[in-house]
Amino acid sequence: MSTLLDNLCIVMVHTSHPGNIGSAARAMMTMGVSDLRLVNPNRMNSPETEALASGAIGIVQNAKVVESLAEAVSDCQYVVGTSARSERTLRWPQMNSRECSEQIAPKLSQQKVAIVFGRERSGLTNEELDHCHALVHIPMALENFSLNIASAVQVLCYECAMAVSLQNQQQEKQGLGEDLANAQQMEGFYQHLEQTLIDVRYLDPENPRLLMRRLRRLFNRVEVTQSEMNLLRGMLSAFQGRKFTKR
Amino acid sequence: MSTLLDNLCIVMVHTSHPGNIGSAARAMMTMGVSDLRLVNPNRMNSPETEALASGAIGIVQNAKVVESLAEAVSDCQYVVGTSARSERTLRWPQMNSRECSEQIAPKLSQQKVAIVFGRERSGLTNEELDHCHALVHIPMALENFSLNIASAVQVLCYECAMAVSLQNQQQEKQGLGEDLANAQQMEGFYQHLEQTLIDVRYLDPENPRLLMRRLRRLFNRVEVTQSEMNLLRGMLSAFQGRKFTKR
Repeated sequence: MSTLLDNLCIVMVHTSHPGNIGSAARAMMTMGVSDLRLVNPNRMNSPETEALASGAIGIVQNAKVVESLAEAVSDCQYVVGTSARSERTLRWPQMNSRECSEQIAPKLSQQKVAIVFGRERSGLTNEELDHCHALVHIPMALENFSLNIASAVQVLCYECAMAVSLQNQQQEKQGLGEDLANAQQMEGFYQHLEQTLIDVRYLDPENPRLLMRRLRRLFNRVEVTQSEMNLLRGMLSAFQGRKFTKR
Repeated sequence: MSTLLDNLCIVMVHTSHPGNIGSAARAMMTMGVSDLRLVNPNRMNSPETEALASGAIGIVQNAKVVESLAEAVSDCQYVVGTSARSERTLRWPQMNSRECSEQIAPKLSQQKVAIVFGRERSGLTNEELDHCHALVHIPMALENFSLNIASAVQVLCYECAMAVSLQNQQQEKQGLGEDLANAQQMEGFYQHLEQTLIDVRYLDPENPRLLMRRLRRLFNRVEVTQSEMNLLRGMLSAFQGRKFTKR
């Protein structure tokens, strides 16, 4: 997908089961994320780790193993802590997984971003949360039935990869593809539309009511491209009984 | 989340590892999906199944076990087959996981929808694909490194739950506000627009080119409300020199 994901790292804090580290590594690799950091893992090498990592054992072997979360995220500008549910506290901004990825994607071009996963059973401590800028939760169907940690890594890496890919598409569309009509062109269109509606006596300039405001609200919701703008102007001219020439 | 997800079922075909069935059940349950169907599983009960299902073993116990995919999806109106990558074939419409969930969510209010997962190594056969209306793939970073089957179940159930939840939010917003024009009304608008463009000689019915298709693409991007639709129809009638009466 994109090298932007090189700037995303996954931090696992006090993971109990070495198999979960392997599964998480596989989940990361499927999405093009490779920077894994382990804070005091219980054990990180077992036959299960390698079996579950499948071809992604290199990510475990290259993982940075440290003593504290502070050390793990020392080079990161933005740190997001995962939480099993939307917390009631107001201490940290709360995001769901979709919002989180939309927040992270634009940062990745310039910043190192960490997503931190706590212990399998008890999550992150308050001291660990103090290192986080925001909290993310994956919306779940049931209150007390949460995702396996590797599944949570999978969903969040997937969301980030999707967000980066959508962001790239957006940028390409704007760059290579078609330019959108700018504000001045939209203004020209609204004036032309208004005049046309006056010409056909649909709009009474003495009593315009909310007509133009409603039409602006409608057309502002579409992102009209340059060529569509020419089409719309051409139609208006035809309705007026004359030809529209591009400018 | 929503009972709409009761209409989504997960079909696993010839799954080799009983543990994968357990993990898939857990993944389903986190997202509120509970209808599991197993086509000729290698084994479906092992200590691993129960361990990996965690609290979701009920989903496995209630699973419908059948001999063929045809039987598994006999009550489903829309069947999506999973594929490790975007296939080069044109036999089936291709979607990625995001597009797939957006396709599925609106169907769930009236239809039974199945997402079908093939064998761990070799996926679905062509005969099995013949039962599918479309193919879905999860975008991956590498060509030959795919998600574990339970992770794929997790991502697709997650996407569907997100799409349903976003759809509910959308409908709530509209419920409080205004109804959107339905497909029949949009069709009436396009016919009226086409006739008006023919009347003013902007559109030559002998040589229509892509004009109507481009206009459909433009107006389909806006979600036109009922009252905006009346406004647009009124304008078209004015352009034709007559009055439009609501129906």
